[in-house]
Amino acid sequence: MAVGLTEAEKILPVAGVKLAAVTAGIKKSRQPDMVVIAFENTASCAATFTRNAFCAAPVTLAKENLSKTGDKGIRALLINSGNANAGTGSKGMDNARQSCQWLADELQCSPEQILPFSTGVIGEQLPMDAMLSGIKQISQNLSADNWLAAARGIMTTDTLYKAVSKTISIDDRVITISGIAKGSGMICPNMATMLAFITTDASVEHEFLQQCLSAAVEKSFNSITVDGDTSTNDACVLIASGEAGNTVLDNNSAQAAVFVDALHDVCQYLAQAIIRDGEGATKFVTVTVAQAAAEAEARQVAYTIAHSPLVKTALFASDPNWGRILAAVGRAGVQQLDISGVNLFLDDVCIVRNGGVDADYTEDRGQRVMDRSEITITVELGRGDESATVWTSDLSHEYVRINAEYRS
Amino acid sequence: MAVGLTEAEKILPVAGVKLAAVTAGIKKSRQPDMVVIAFENTASCAATFTRNAFCAAPVTLAKENLSKTGDKGIRALLINSGNANAGTGSKGMDNARQSCQWLADELQCSPEQILPFSTGVIGEQLPMDAMLSGIKQISQNLSADNWLAAARGIMTTDTLYKAVSKTISIDDRVITISGIAKGSGMICPNMATMLAFITTDASVEHEFLQQCLSAAVEKSFNSITVDGDTSTNDACVLIASGEAGNTVLDNNSAQAAVFVDALHDVCQYLAQAIIRDGEGATKFVTVTVAQAAAEAEARQVAYTIAHSPLVKTALFASDPNWGRILAAVGRAGVQQLDISGVNLFLDDVCIVRNGGVDADYTEDRGQRVMDRSEITITVELGRGDESATVWTSDLSHEYVRINAEYRS
Repeated sequence: MAVGLTEAEKILPVAGVKLAAVTAGIKKSRQPDMVVIAFENTASCAATFTRNAFCAAPVTLAKENLSKTGDKGIRALLINSGNANAGTGSKGMDNARQSCQWLADELQCSPEQILPFSTGVIGEQLPMDAMLSGIKQISQNLSADNWLAAARGIMTTDTLYKAVSKTISIDDRVITISGIAKGSGMICPNMATMLAFITTDASVEHEFLQQCLSAAVEKSFNSITVDGDTSTNDACVLIASGEAGNTVLDNNSAQAAVFVDALHDVCQYLAQAIIRDGEGATKFVTVTVAQAAAEAEARQVAYTIAHSPLVKTALFASDPNWGRILAAVGRAGVQQLDISGVNLFLDDVCIVRNGGVDADYTEDRGQRVMDRSEITITVELGRGDESATVWTSDLSHEYVRINAEYRS
Repeated sequence: MAVGLTEAEKILPVAGVKLAAVTAGIKKSRQPDMVVIAFENTASCAATFTRNAFCAAPVTLAKENLSKTGDKGIRALLINSGNANAGTGSKGMDNARQSCQWLADELQCSPEQILPFSTGVIGEQLPMDAMLSGIKQISQNLSADNWLAAARGIMTTDTLYKAVSKTISIDDRVITISGIAKGSGMICPNMATMLAFITTDASVEHEFLQQCLSAAVEKSFNSITVDGDTSTNDACVLIASGEAGNTVLDNNSAQAAVFVDALHDVCQYLAQAIIRDGEGATKFVTVTVAQAAAEAEARQVAYTIAHSPLVKTALFASDPNWGRILAAVGRAGVQQLDISGVNLFLDDVCIVRNGGVDADYTEDRGQRVMDRSEITITVELGRGDESATVWTSDLSHEYVRINAEYRS
């Protein structure tokens, strides 16, 4: 059902990075549900986490371990799918700590060198027997070539795995960036039920790495929405092993932009893949709001459109019911919006010009765009030069079915 | 499918008020689609309108006519269903004006004494042949006993009509308040696709009448949501004929509270009826947020819960997946929320106490509440004494079907 998304056939290994995936028995489906990404040598680690006040135990512990260990000492990411370990109180924290301890024993490091991540049902305790059994198996299976297995192992309601690689050349050395992500519902800005793990063999100065990740996340994972819900567990981690041997990249490096662009491409691919595989998605929709007085205003209007159940059901029905888009623009809270300055386009078809139906618009022309599986909605507000783009999916029967039946 | 809603069998006539409903031919279904509510003598008229910047032509004209005519000269409300006359530009304004002129000709008054209202599809011009034919028939059919026909005539996706009467005694005179409303989707605060017409024979001073209506709307029509969408057309009008002969009610009247309470009851019944008949609704859900630092904070959290597609699909599935409610609380934007002060109840069952699962909670107890068709979600934030309540419905397959097929 995913819109315009195919699974990558090969992901490039990243020097210094090994992965493993096993079936620990957390998911009832007996699908792979535990992944470890291990590092021989971490040169630098950057991360962004959910802003949900009810953040899950693993999020709290990952932040704590990262601050204790510093960005150079991280030895492994321990990820389980099938259970989010969220809303689980102090027992949930104990369980997350115990899991890190078990993996630390296997890898012969300290538990603070492990960052834990969980995704799945909220409010149930981690099945610790399964966690232990998975951790016991997993350290035996680490390999540089296990990217695709890892991409599969972190899935929950995803129908396809999301993985991408990119190479660039810096200092005449080939630099690889490889990443995986999961998420298809509860996707909204500020890190939704979304996990993304990106590694590179580049050598990158820590502050610059964090700056690159934050900027890339803002224009990718924080610019997508399936349903407006922001989860308790989301995280995006970027680890640089430094094995490529390039001169350390920082803000002043001549070739910093090459790395920034490549990282942005990787994040955007993974973020869009999440939307293409959005729960029940039949459309991949780009919403661009231009001519806004401020970027925040443009984002606010774009998100109001992207979150509107009426717009989303019209997209599902391939119905050019553009009045619903205008109604969303009108209620987006823009102060003193002059509707006579508003233009609306579906792909290249102008529907509304200066607040009224365009003279050349016909329902047939709107219908031809709506019949496509990938659609761009462009709104011009006529108030300034700022713009923003978000990506979303439609609201289908399948979305309701998936989310009504998720725990059954 | 409406939850706990039955159609009133009788609505009390209001002295000085006559109504008519006809099939003008605006709806393809050939159901009644035009209603007139006429007044022999308007003592006072109060109104609230949508805050959507793209407000429809009839909204603009109704405001204009009301300001020109003043609150005492309104002779009739002209309401059509099936077409919202929204997003229709200057031609839409011309059509609204022409429609008022035609009815004014029939009623031998000035067109500024007519307030027009439209509800239905956005972005299509009013079928003026049908409008004229309806208006020609309708003035012949005015009767004090046509409340139920009028309630039917304003319906769009409603499955049941919404109408209510209440009597109170003031100055030893029986005062009647009777009202009708329509709306079942695109329902959100700030007047959604919601029309409500309420009349009373009480004699009420104008400013006080507006104040009563605004207060009642805030706690009723502006405290409900089906899908977070606010329409271009919504309006609530309250007309007092003054025929009951009581001493004019104002802010200082000893019996003002009796009128205020009765009006609040009427508005709350109609607002809740809209939610009970929410598009595809299988649950009627009351969301109360208490112990907030401010009422606005309480409303913000309540609406975040009520708008969450994940909460709404869990309600549809009767799944006590309370983690989704906590996640909504956590992302509602409350500054420095201390989650250890948060309690969560489903009806009288405590699920979360002090941010963690309550010791006595079992899935069975949660399930018993979720199996009910009427459910109250109560969240205590532990931050103060303010509270707010909103009403909502669940998100079902039927919601998607209705909104995907609406124009087909």
